[in-house]
Amino acid sequence: MSQPPIAAIILAAGQGTRMKSDRHKVLHPIAGHPMLHHLLTSVDRLHPAEKVVVVGAGREQVEASLAGRGASIAVQAEQLGTGHAVQQAEEALQEFSGDVLILYGDVPLVTEATMQRMLDRLNAPDAPVAVVLGFRPADAAAYGRIVADADGGIARMVEFKDATPEERAVTLCNSGLLAVRAADLFALLARVGNDNAAGEYYLPDIIMLAASDGRKSAVIEADASEVAGVNSRAELAAVEAEWQRRRRAEAMAAGVTLAAPETVWFAHDTVLGRDVTIAPHVVFGPGVHIADNVTIHAFSHIEGATVESGAEVGPYARLRPGAVLREKSKVGNFVEVKKSELGVGAKANHLTYLGDATVGAGANIGAGTITCNYDGYFKYRTEIGEGAFVGSNSALVAPVKIGNGAIVGAGSVITRDVETDALALGRGAQEAKSGWARRFRDMMKSKKAG
Amino acid sequence: MSQPPIAAIILAAGQGTRMKSDRHKVLHPIAGHPMLHHLLTSVDRLHPAEKVVVVGAGREQVEASLAGRGASIAVQAEQLGTGHAVQQAEEALQEFSGDVLILYGDVPLVTEATMQRMLDRLNAPDAPVAVVLGFRPADAAAYGRIVADADGGIARMVEFKDATPEERAVTLCNSGLLAVRAADLFALLARVGNDNAAGEYYLPDIIMLAASDGRKSAVIEADASEVAGVNSRAELAAVEAEWQRRRRAEAMAAGVTLAAPETVWFAHDTVLGRDVTIAPHVVFGPGVHIADNVTIHAFSHIEGATVESGAEVGPYARLRPGAVLREKSKVGNFVEVKKSELGVGAKANHLTYLGDATVGAGANIGAGTITCNYDGYFKYRTEIGEGAFVGSNSALVAPVKIGNGAIVGAGSVITRDVETDALALGRGAQEAKSGWARRFRDMMKSKKAG
Amino acid sequence: MSQPPIAAIILAAGQGTRMKSDRHKVLHPIAGHPMLHHLLTSVDRLHPAEKVVVVGAGREQVEASLAGRGASIAVQAEQLGTGHAVQQAEEALQEFSGDVLILYGDVPLVTEATMQRMLDRLNAPDAPVAVVLGFRPADAAAYGRIVADADGGIARMVEFKDATPEERAVTLCNSGLLAVRAADLFALLARVGNDNAAGEYYLPDIIMLAASDGRKSAVIEADASEVAGVNSRAELAAVEAEWQRRRRAEAMAAGVTLAAPETVWFAHDTVLGRDVTIAPHVVFGPGVHIADNVTIHAFSHIEGATVESGAEVGPYARLRPGAVLREKSKVGNFVEVKKSELGVGAKANHLTYLGDATVGAGANIGAGTITCNYDGYFKYRTEIGEGAFVGSNSALVAPVKIGNGAIVGAGSVITRDVETDALALGRGAQEAKSGWARRFRDMMKSKKAG
Repeated sequence: MSQPPIAAIILAAGQGTRMKSDRHKVLHPIAGHPMLHHLLTSVDRLHPAEKVVVVGAGREQVEASLAGRGASIAVQAEQLGTGHAVQQAEEALQEFSGDVLILYGDVPLVTEATMQRMLDRLNAPDAPVAVVLGFRPADAAAYGRIVADADGGIARMVEFKDATPEERAVTLCNSGLLAVRAADLFALLARVGNDNAAGEYYLPDIIMLAASDGRKSAVIEADASEVAGVNSRAELAAVEAEWQRRRRAEAMAAGVTLAAPETVWFAHDTVLGRDVTIAPHVVFGPGVHIADNVTIHAFSHIEGATVESGAEVGPYARLRPGAVLREKSKVGNFVEVKKSELGVGAKANHLTYLGDATVGAGANIGAGTITCNYDGYFKYRTEIGEGAFVGSNSALVAPVKIGNGAIVGAGSVITRDVETDALALGRGAQEAKSGWARRFRDMMKSKKAG
Repeated sequence: MSQPPIAAIILAAGQGTRMKSDRHKVLHPIAGHPMLHHLLTSVDRLHPAEKVVVVGAGREQVEASLAGRGASIAVQAEQLGTGHAVQQAEEALQEFSGDVLILYGDVPLVTEATMQRMLDRLNAPDAPVAVVLGFRPADAAAYGRIVADADGGIARMVEFKDATPEERAVTLCNSGLLAVRAADLFALLARVGNDNAAGEYYLPDIIMLAASDGRKSAVIEADASEVAGVNSRAELAAVEAEWQRRRRAEAMAAGVTLAAPETVWFAHDTVLGRDVTIAPHVVFGPGVHIADNVTIHAFSHIEGATVESGAEVGPYARLRPGAVLREKSKVGNFVEVKKSELGVGAKANHLTYLGDATVGAGANIGAGTITCNYDGYFKYRTEIGEGAFVGSNSALVAPVKIGNGAIVGAGSVITRDVETDALALGRGAQEAKSGWARRFRDMMKSKKAG
Repeated sequence: MSQPPIAAIILAAGQGTRMKSDRHKVLHPIAGHPMLHHLLTSVDRLHPAEKVVVVGAGREQVEASLAGRGASIAVQAEQLGTGHAVQQAEEALQEFSGDVLILYGDVPLVTEATMQRMLDRLNAPDAPVAVVLGFRPADAAAYGRIVADADGGIARMVEFKDATPEERAVTLCNSGLLAVRAADLFALLARVGNDNAAGEYYLPDIIMLAASDGRKSAVIEADASEVAGVNSRAELAAVEAEWQRRRRAEAMAAGVTLAAPETVWFAHDTVLGRDVTIAPHVVFGPGVHIADNVTIHAFSHIEGATVESGAEVGPYARLRPGAVLREKSKVGNFVEVKKSELGVGAKANHLTYLGDATVGAGANIGAGTITCNYDGYFKYRTEIGEGAFVGSNSALVAPVKIGNGAIVGAGSVITRDVETDALALGRGAQEAKSGWARRFRDMMKSKKAG
């Protein structure tokens, strides 16, 4: 079978009051990325012709976040049910002819593989009018039930409150996700009424309407964890946990050692090489690439950074956006690196801040070194040459260059460039006052006593 | 019904040998607070007329911790059973007439709501002589069983070792917690004997003694997690986990994002605003107030601190008692703040120690800044004015004032006040020795080879 | 019964392809120690006369790791099954007469107690020809089944694929671990054929061969967690988790408080005293001794360190090999200590690097102090006397001595020894430029605007 064009309608008009947040529900992050965008990323892998996001309350936030994502916006001004919400997408899709996936901005973990299975089923030889994604939750609770035929056709769909005891005993539930041809979708929706207690137009009604025309729908199943929805911060945490569980398993299967998987938190786009070792208690923000054979020690926090093969990170390393660690370089305890590159084999191992700096290959940055990159208005660069040695507790006042092979004496404040192979010192002369400390102590003790 | 006066008797005389600790069992902390005090806090919400803590071994520690808590002490010199322990409270309660709650210092999670339910049941129209708190553990094991009537009356209470197979099949167990009128309690206790294998006076015997008088007791149920007891460090950890689980759920329900709830540890009194976001791996000590819209990044450790709306904390921020972060201020990587206030929008983002300092609104504290607040005897204050800019790696030797809008050059040691809008420098002049580094390397290489 | 001499044959010839690693599977660490060595450590507690490790692919790595462990190496050049692998050990054991334990390098958690139980059963009066270690997994899946007699004799052992439905219903599975007398082992192995689908020689065949001679084997059981094998990084993480779970339980039982046990990661050899308190999020590397009454605060990372009674560590303390904290000393926030000793009651509480240093009793190391111990070629020592006071943000350029009771002024660079009771200063003079900051701001603002 060949795949007709695809459109995705993503419902994101819910109020999300249980989130108790000024942020729109679908913009709450999973793995550092708004949950709506997780879903869009999965949808994009199917190369859809159209994506329509149906928004309601708080739509400005959602629209702003969609800039550049190639999605149309449809507005559901009133909350009149899921059927009504989908209808708002009709105008945006009036030129579209093909298969429609109906998705939910607050059900973010559905994979493109599952979406593709839905589409494949829709285009199977028996051509069901719609494909419903079912799931079997641990506790079926108040979910709508799907009574399936032996061959996966849908005999009946029923809301929990209308279900008979026999129907309630059915464990297959309706996730709400649907694949259906555009022409069928809107024709059926036009016939859906709101003659029910809530006065709402329900999307699932199209299944039974089609059945009354003698046209059958099909159900396929997904794991309950994949269709978990987010209506509260506790559910947000549960979906985050599921996402992380999957990602950790993927990482381990690909040859990453996680001594304590449940203490490592990945971002949505973390890239990890083979034989990478990650110690307990490590957090990744977005934009991280870790090459092969890298060791990341405990309590490291890494975002926007590139770490090349054989480099060593942490413990307590803080890599911020623009940090680049070349092969076999090392960033250690209580060291922060921002928009800075450490050359091959370079080291900054203790209590250091490197901002807007270039550190040459093999250079050694002593403990307590600070690049003074900011004057309150602009940021300036520090360039440290290959093989240079920056003594401990030095302040390098940018813009400044330390030449190849140069040495900066410990405790120096460097405000002017240091030439290749030179020694630079910038510190006060040492003076001593004999017996001063003893006299001070005597004075302070009597002061404290008094 | 109106509530008679309330007295609480808290048994805390157990040896706690399985804790293997020099610290008294009931003083081991849950969420940074002695477990006995968790219980007292819950009791205090019922406004009891009397609180009596029955102590035995290690009573000095318990008494010391009770200073100011308004509790009487009763001493159980010998360990002759729970009935005997409760009897020790009789003297302290001789003026008291009303309802008595019998609680256990090592069963700290019982809520005031549950205590109130016990009292309500005691004062229900059928007026049971006592109300026992039952629970249904996952493994009933050797707990005493409660055989209940259809109407929640107690037909029989039986120790596990004396129970018939039918009685052992009962899943309702005795937590030991009890509500009973003072007059009944001591009258019944006086009739309890010690004619058993251990030679002890058992508190639950009063239920069957009353029954033999034709007076019925009632049982109400609590969740097993609420009546979990602490007899070992493993059980202490389990109770801590349960407390944290509850607290995290409360926080999320109130509008706090916890990306990784199980990695965040709250203290007993942590206060959190709405739309607070807490990253993985954050620890709270006592005395923390976090306002709305605050973001707390990973690996932060916060105690005794007040953080105002829109402020940003961490990663790796260490806020200690007396830290006050005003609106939109920022404390970042490897920064420690103690008894110091950061004004509105002020920033201290890297490798800084602020102790006994005031930082004006909008001031910027450069990386590696240290307030030198201690001379070995006294602590001194540093005052940094509004809009001041403290260059990186500076040492501010207190007592010292940096005026509004003043600039401190990077790497300076500041020992005298800096006036408003002035630039202050305090660092050695930079000098250079051409070729010195090359000669040094040649020398060291031959030394290393030799 | 007396115990005959013991030999252990450890199979470590598997490819481990699912690990996706350049490191040999049995060398992947559990609790910071190669899994093969965990097993060897347990074996060594039985004082075996011989240990033979059978290696195949990647044997160089395994051999290198065995240096000094007193184990012989036998090479299995081709992978022809477990029976064939064990046969490779025959030559190394030709002088040996006694009991043989057959173990697996990737089944590392088997305890010496279980091994001893196997040997005891082998030497029981009924003298079975072999003792198989069975287990009951949650999901018996495709494990070989053991059909046991009422008296623990083995009626039948059967591979899953050859098992009848009745046999598959058996929950007792074969772990592969075996105890058998050396003479029996090699005689039986010589009769094992490879007439099966894989063309391999299977070790368990010896049980049925002995049975065909009328000689019975016995089975004893271990907990499934003890015989968990490692074939992937996910299984590695699972075994690590099980090891840590056991170790945390042991620590708590011995009188250590773990507020958050699942966030604390021990090394294989961590030694902990009584009434030690460990906060959430603490990581131990190898070689740590913690004495009684030590408190370790959150986010501490400790390896190769000795911490004496009453000392306080962290939060954010980084103790590296050679760190020695004497009684009641204190190492605090963002402080790294390497090859350094802090004397009784000495303190280094903030943002400090102590490398190759000795700090006398009662000395106070100010915030931001750095020992400059490295010149790019050699490391040098810093000696700080008793009761000395090192002012904040000082750099101590080693080799250097600070005398007893001496004071170093804040922000000093100290390059020469400081005598007892003297005050040493080494910093630039402070100078001020009135109004400079205001002029600078005006200039920068116009620059930024332009």
